[in-house]
Amino acid sequence: MKIVRSFILLGLTLTLLSVWGCTKKETPEVVREEPIQPIPLKVDYDPEKVELGKMLYFDPRLSKSGFISCNSCHNLATGGVDNLPRSIGHKWQFGGINAPTVLNSRYNIAQFWDGRAKDLKEQAGGPIENPVEMAFSHEMAVKVIQSIPQYVERFKKVYGTDQIDIDKITDAIAAFEETLITPNSRFDQWLRGDDNALTAEEKEGYQLFKEKGCITCHNGIGVGGNMFQKFGVVKPYERDTKTLGRYEVTKNEADKYVFKVPILRNVELTYPYFHDGSTYSLSEAVNIMAEYQLGIELTPEETRKIVAFLKTLTGEQPRIVYPVLPPSTEKTPKPTPAD
Amino acid sequence: MKIVRSFILLGLTLTLLSVWGCTKKETPEVVREEPIQPIPLKVDYDPEKVELGKMLYFDPRLSKSGFISCNSCHNLATGGVDNLPRSIGHKWQFGGINAPTVLNSRYNIAQFWDGRAKDLKEQAGGPIENPVEMAFSHEMAVKVIQSIPQYVERFKKVYGTDQIDIDKITDAIAAFEETLITPNSRFDQWLRGDDNALTAEEKEGYQLFKEKGCITCHNGIGVGGNMFQKFGVVKPYERDTKTLGRYEVTKNEADKYVFKVPILRNVELTYPYFHDGSTYSLSEAVNIMAEYQLGIELTPEETRKIVAFLKTLTGEQPRIVYPVLPPSTEKTPKPTPAD
Repeated sequence: MKIVRSFILLGLTLTLLSVWGCTKKETPEVVREEPIQPIPLKVDYDPEKVELGKMLYFDPRLSKSGFISCNSCHNLATGGVDNLPRSIGHKWQFGGINAPTVLNSRYNIAQFWDGRAKDLKEQAGGPIENPVEMAFSHEMAVKVIQSIPQYVERFKKVYGTDQIDIDKITDAIAAFEETLITPNSRFDQWLRGDDNALTAEEKEGYQLFKEKGCITCHNGIGVGGNMFQKFGVVKPYERDTKTLGRYEVTKNEADKYVFKVPILRNVELTYPYFHDGSTYSLSEAVNIMAEYQLGIELTPEETRKIVAFLKTLTGEQPRIVYPVLPPSTEKTPKPTPAD
Repeated sequence: MKIVRSFILLGLTLTLLSVWGCTKKETPEVVREEPIQPIPLKVDYDPEKVELGKMLYFDPRLSKSGFISCNSCHNLATGGVDNLPRSIGHKWQFGGINAPTVLNSRYNIAQFWDGRAKDLKEQAGGPIENPVEMAFSHEMAVKVIQSIPQYVERFKKVYGTDQIDIDKITDAIAAFEETLITPNSRFDQWLRGDDNALTAEEKEGYQLFKEKGCITCHNGIGVGGNMFQKFGVVKPYERDTKTLGRYEVTKNEADKYVFKVPILRNVELTYPYFHDGSTYSLSEAVNIMAEYQLGIELTPEETRKIVAFLKTLTGEQPRIVYPVLPPSTEKTPKPTPAD
């Protein structure tokens, strides 16, 4: 009898505990009041759509050659970039501009260096039909994917129709890219209250980053990505005078040499730097910014401290299970790498 | 008292069960007696070495351009091949021969179509310094990896020294490749006794595969990979008369047009076929084999059945967590994609 009663009591307790677990409100995150905010620890997403998007992201059949995928230039093994000054595209052509990282790109106000795409979905269509990148056409990309039954099945499941179009392809790719965040960097741990997450030097670097004025443009969740700014605010930038940036979109004279301020999250991984990829050295990049954007010269010690701070922005990289892609069929248009 | 006794009994039982679990012999696998053997369900490996090898396998810094990795041509998303007739290498040069799959390559008697490398380790060094593939040198590859502290640390852990050399690099890559098996195909399930794993047509296809003589060369665990054979046994193969195969290794006249018999595991994924990648159609490939190797003509029904059987050889693809590669340092030699 006594044992039976004990069991009933235990059952009741467990039930109450689980009800409490389900209904209790999550306590709002307490974060230091700083011009940089931490990346959320996770984002909500549709697993079926994201899996489909991941497959497409890694699928070289979206290129004319059958050799280049989104991941070729935005490589998730290397900070979401290719670590090259300019990307290699179809027939080894070099792109006109350094490939920006796909990591945390959801926090950009617009996509591409000149912001010509309003969001990731619009961006994803660009390289597919860019003749120096994947060199395909949207029509051919759709034809290829539509010819593969396992893809058709997945599109049907996600979009409720087996009629694939470029809109759905780029929507799925963008959905995958939206998940590519890098939370929990040491800097974010510090923002969330862990005083020991940063060394004294790194904290001093962050103070300098604010005091010297870097923070004016590099702020928010992305530590950049939320505004456009001229490269060469106080002094013309001479290394690249051909790339006109935002001017190409607006045709407004004032937008010449104006670019989207790049995200500095994981900047340790995303070398070489700037839209022209002109330096592999983070110290040099910091000094160039000081000179051309702020009109100041940093002491070697200041540069070192700012670099130390910047390296604390490296977050947890997305854990990607490499996709297994469905085979082409006899109906699939063949790649034409030599054309 | 009673409860205490019950607990003691329970404890004793659990102990006995766990002892039995640890000491019982694994019952030897019962497999049908056939000229093809199933792929083992798992292989033993050294996790630290394999993880290091995986990183190197995916690292484009082993190429001159910083753009091409082992995985570029032996893509684990697409059956361990690039699905191109000839691979794309440095500066978009085309290789001389179709890239064979890395999947189950541990079951090859030798590596490369002409068998010029005795094992996977010897093979791995080839493409790195092949001027039309990764176009690097072993010396430069070692310099790059040695300049990256996180790699040095891993080499030290695996090999007990922080002096990296090409021997260790290729040893680690080979160790990773050794794990790339594709067990549990439907055909292997049937070999292990599951009568329902294959349809009637697929079983008839396998009978034809044996009766017509395909099995003479395509047998063993790999369904190929364990011998050399002339392409054009009964009739000269005219599509490619330039690639001399094993002759290049032995300089023996009888070895002209002799190639390693390719593994047919996952053949559904490894198109286009033959050393010259001359057809994307598995049916056509089967018919060509019948004509040139066996001197017979298959009926469309026979071809269809053999193809149906071949598709049962697709196994479980390796589950790869995409590696996160350590960043280069200022000491790391820069890639030179334009040279």
